[in-house]
Amino acid sequence: MLDEKKRKITVDIYGQQYTIVGEESSSHIRIVASMVDDKMREISAMNPSLDTAKLAVLTAVNTVHDYMKLKEQINQLELELLKKRD
Amino acid sequence: MLDEKKRKITVDIYGQQYTIVGEESSSHIRIVASMVDDKMREISAMNPSLDTAKLAVLTAVNTVHDYMKLKEQINQLELELLKKRD
Repeated sequence: MLDEKKRKITVDIYGQQYTIVGEESSSHIRIVASMVDDKMREISAMNPSLDTAKLAVLTAVNTVHDYMKLKEQINQLELELLKKRD
Repeated sequence: MLDEKKRKITVDIYGQQYTIVGEESSSHIRIVASMVDDKMREISAMNPSLDTAKLAVLTAVNTVHDYMKLKEQINQLELELLKKRD
């Protein structure tokens, strides 16, 4: 295993700069940041009156919802794999 | 299939009320909201100087990162399932 190194990357999300600290590659962090930026712009286009804080909270809500859907998909796949083992 | 009905649920996230519109059950929406609330409080505890907008953006970043990890897990499970079919 390689030594885990904390990286510090500055990204731009919805016109604001953020310093992200993590062990992931800078390209991974940039992809994550651009996904958040895209989602915020998408939600903002549908709700132009929202301020940045509310917009960001709703973006987080949206993402947690997608996360939970993936979790369900994983449970199903694991169940399918278990069945194959029988 | 049942008729899909849009639900309107008001939830409290980080001391602010949000009206969420969706086709999910109200219990699902409440769980998602409380996960966002928890994550915001967790990040806030580590970075007490962040304002709500930045806190929410970092919460979204965090969740998108977790989402991508699940995506990788799904790819691996699907690959495993494909192998079982051989």
